[in-house]
Amino acid sequence: MRYLDEDAIEKIAVGAAVLGSGGGGDPYVGKLMAKQAIRKHGPVRLIDADEVPDGELVIPSAMMGAPAVMLEKLPNGKEPETSFRALEKFLGRNAYAVISIEAGGLNSCIPIYTAASLGLPLIDGDGMGRAFPELPMVSFSLGGVSSSPMVICDEKGNKIILEAASNQWSEVLSRTATIAMGLNSMLGIYSMDGATVKRLAIRGTMTLAERIGEKILEAGKSRVSAVDGILEITKGFSLFEGKISDVRRDLTSGFMRGTVVFEGIDGCKGESYELDFQNENLVGRRNGKANAMTPDLITVLDQERGLPITTEHLKYGRRCIVVGMPCHPIWRTEAGIKQVGPRYFKYDLDYVPIEKLAGGAR
Amino acid sequence: MRYLDEDAIEKIAVGAAVLGSGGGGDPYVGKLMAKQAIRKHGPVRLIDADEVPDGELVIPSAMMGAPAVMLEKLPNGKEPETSFRALEKFLGRNAYAVISIEAGGLNSCIPIYTAASLGLPLIDGDGMGRAFPELPMVSFSLGGVSSSPMVICDEKGNKIILEAASNQWSEVLSRTATIAMGLNSMLGIYSMDGATVKRLAIRGTMTLAERIGEKILEAGKSRVSAVDGILEITKGFSLFEGKISDVRRDLTSGFMRGTVVFEGIDGCKGESYELDFQNENLVGRRNGKANAMTPDLITVLDQERGLPITTEHLKYGRRCIVVGMPCHPIWRTEAGIKQVGPRYFKYDLDYVPIEKLAGGAR
Repeated sequence: MRYLDEDAIEKIAVGAAVLGSGGGGDPYVGKLMAKQAIRKHGPVRLIDADEVPDGELVIPSAMMGAPAVMLEKLPNGKEPETSFRALEKFLGRNAYAVISIEAGGLNSCIPIYTAASLGLPLIDGDGMGRAFPELPMVSFSLGGVSSSPMVICDEKGNKIILEAASNQWSEVLSRTATIAMGLNSMLGIYSMDGATVKRLAIRGTMTLAERIGEKILEAGKSRVSAVDGILEITKGFSLFEGKISDVRRDLTSGFMRGTVVFEGIDGCKGESYELDFQNENLVGRRNGKANAMTPDLITVLDQERGLPITTEHLKYGRRCIVVGMPCHPIWRTEAGIKQVGPRYFKYDLDYVPIEKLAGGAR
Repeated sequence: MRYLDEDAIEKIAVGAAVLGSGGGGDPYVGKLMAKQAIRKHGPVRLIDADEVPDGELVIPSAMMGAPAVMLEKLPNGKEPETSFRALEKFLGRNAYAVISIEAGGLNSCIPIYTAASLGLPLIDGDGMGRAFPELPMVSFSLGGVSSSPMVICDEKGNKIILEAASNQWSEVLSRTATIAMGLNSMLGIYSMDGATVKRLAIRGTMTLAERIGEKILEAGKSRVSAVDGILEITKGFSLFEGKISDVRRDLTSGFMRGTVVFEGIDGCKGESYELDFQNENLVGRRNGKANAMTPDLITVLDQERGLPITTEHLKYGRRCIVVGMPCHPIWRTEAGIKQVGPRYFKYDLDYVPIEKLAGGAR
């Protein structure tokens, strides 16, 4: 057990955005919320999953929807607590701890905010080890935990308790509700006991994010050492250096879907890179040939400082480095590939691990 | 207090479809469900609102969505009970009686089914005295009752408890959920106490529907007396006699929206009639000039037997009589007109009562 203070949040927000693979939300609003909650309620206790008694209740706290909207449609600040408490009430018992559902700038900070606001400890871990766009794409679901009952809240005061027929129905019904609520919402979901958390949580994600964030913030203006630091910690690969020459985005499905095109610079001059995303980056193609694909992590960093750029901040003219990092082994199992591999996202591609695809490029 | 048997249901189903103004659902499936429940559980006690003690709980039971879908996507039969019981459980108390939210072939039968299945009495009344397409278009809402908490169920086992910020948000969020569930769902909604039911329910709708149905079924092949019987009981007017020459329908919004065109026959030869609907018939135009409009009731009857034709059964070539009937006075108040008058449905028309518009045409 240790405590997370404002300095730790500053690092986690940046580091988690690297793990977010373009998604998981812009860290800015989440960071402000988490820091404000800590100033008000004191530092958050970060505990290991093993510290949770087997029979105690754990509830993940998360934002759902298109993160870009969060920058304009601000939360009122009560939603994470409201969702969490409503789920506790519906279950008829109090939670012992909070956990994050995914690693991402926003969705790593929201659980800190929730934990601080409720005076509960936060578990050092999450359900993805990265960010993914859909609710069933989480180790808890892969391990048989039901996403129901789940609570969905918005800043207008709407509250939904959903008991879905399956985790896939849960995704469909909460997604349509979230779209109707204005494209984002706050969730209490995947409630489970301590024994289940120990079995299924991806461990140490908060600490990993903090280490990555620390490297980036300490490196300051020296991009080489920031990127090198990220690649060293995550065992990742540099995939491309380029300037953004085109970005296509569409929000109509409730996701941020699109493609960003890079024109090679420096060592990649004369080459091109295309990266598709659905909230998170899915498949990167160097000169038309895939050199990184889901479920491995693909993150765009700004060339100057090595800071992660989430999909909503991809803009024409930005100079970037695209990096790829191996995902948690759970996503490389047959069930994992089926749930989040390239074919799930309609690509006619068999999954090839990043070590094989980009192994020579580091 | 009296009992509703299978014979009464046969009449109510037909008569309520006349009051349904084209909507409220095809009576067929609802009638089968209600009769089956009565065969299994015995006749339903029909009580007056005054028989409900002030402090007791009343819950309306209803189907939401596009009724046409109900003919292909059959309920599993458990949804009305599941919604009702889930709302009771959420409220932490048992209901004393069931009531209908609207008069319509399906939505007058579903509450009979629910009452029979649960062994509860049914109140002789509803919240509209006709059918309307949206949730806040009900006397309960006009009188300040919250539609929340409401429960939405489907045949796949999905269940939603919605606590909306307003009755308008309740409409938006339950409509999107209903669309995602496959265009229809079953509701428990507008829970209220006995005192509120006495204040707001539109009284005697079940008995009125039964009387209308009796007239139609007794008249048999003699259309004149069936239609005359309907107009006499409802103080209504014959608006047009015609053959359907065109029907346009669109389901994409979660409603059945469209227009049906009639070519005059018999006394209306050489004339034309256009009728717009959104689940329910909204505005009828004889030779381009409105001669009936919401909130007054507009119903299409088949010329042969005087049977009501709901919007999903309007078909090219059918010979029909269009009739108009005055709505309950609550809809002619300023608040009523605002909620369900022609301007709410985007018509550039001031509401004119049917007695003035069609008074000479009877």
